[in-house]
Amino acid sequence: MRIYGDSISGNCLKVKWTADYLGLAYDWIETDVLQSQTRTPQFLALNPVGQVPTVVLDDGRPLAQSNAIILHLAEGSDLVPSDAYQRARMLEWMFWEQYSHEPYVAVARFQVKYLGKAPADLEPRLVERGGAALQRLEDALAGSPFLAGARLSLADVALAPYTRMAPDGGFDLAGYPRVTAWIARVEQALGIEA
Amino acid sequence: MRIYGDSISGNCLKVKWTADYLGLAYDWIETDVLQSQTRTPQFLALNPVGQVPTVVLDDGRPLAQSNAIILHLAEGSDLVPSDAYQRARMLEWMFWEQYSHEPYVAVARFQVKYLGKAPADLEPRLVERGGAALQRLEDALAGSPFLAGARLSLADVALAPYTRMAPDGGFDLAGYPRVTAWIARVEQALGIEA
Repeated sequence: MRIYGDSISGNCLKVKWTADYLGLAYDWIETDVLQSQTRTPQFLALNPVGQVPTVVLDDGRPLAQSNAIILHLAEGSDLVPSDAYQRARMLEWMFWEQYSHEPYVAVARFQVKYLGKAPADLEPRLVERGGAALQRLEDALAGSPFLAGARLSLADVALAPYTRMAPDGGFDLAGYPRVTAWIARVEQALGIEA
Repeated sequence: MRIYGDSISGNCLKVKWTADYLGLAYDWIETDVLQSQTRTPQFLALNPVGQVPTVVLDDGRPLAQSNAIILHLAEGSDLVPSDAYQRARMLEWMFWEQYSHEPYVAVARFQVKYLGKAPADLEPRLVERGGAALQRLEDALAGSPFLAGARLSLADVALAPYTRMAPDGGFDLAGYPRVTAWIARVEQALGIEA
């Protein structure tokens, strides 16, 4: 498998974490978004939307969208609950991540860290909705060590990368102690360095 | 099963279409977003995010996020491809829908149809990205009658509702003939009225 990814992207990190946890062999093809390496004719032939991560499976077929990729890779593993309802809750978190978390928490971080914007100059909507997303995680983690239940699932893999990078966008995780503890728990469960 | 839904919402329509196609019994609880019926304490107890659709399954447990709901309901049916790669492509479309289609096509429609904005006054970003989403569908449908292959899947169920409503937001579907033909094909395959 080839993973086309940009090391600065939390969406790409999800795929790396999943593949590493599952012990899958892959070549990582570093693909620099800021240098428009996702806009070359070669890349657009793999993914017409021009986004990373994009993987090329062992049979040569491409697949895009971080959460679709990790669902495909992890199917049948312990990252996907076997209980139908827990599985559905995992999916609920994963769709929520793309609609209500990434567009605020990740976009704020991108604008501050890579476009040089001061956190105070961010669009208020980004700050407000990013904070609401972090608060929702904080609330959900009151009752459960992981997002979709008692153990690690793809819901955690999907949400931890941009959440741990939230301070880059001016969000202070000190206000979210359960989120901070959960990030450490996810990292430990995945066996990765903090 | 109870489906809390607002009849004006394409996200809610996905759930109705899926349940009807599968012949599932349900009570539809009309929940008016414009009247803040998703913000009552009773509703927030079911879904802390205060969004429709939210379903309460037969065992009393709630589930939110339209695409997570339809994946849960349709698991094991012919709306989910049995081939692992086609299934992954279906998921790719469903995550793309929430990230790159709904936030533009559906939001433009909401602002024009329900907030009374003129299409010419929409944020240019909404118009541009909504048009790009429709064009991507048009391109993808050149090679395939349905989005994830030769037959109807949840990718079509997820994308058809807001696409067919796109003219409400000022998008002219006459410029997307394959999309127009696909909408009719999806409606026919689902057995619904145009």
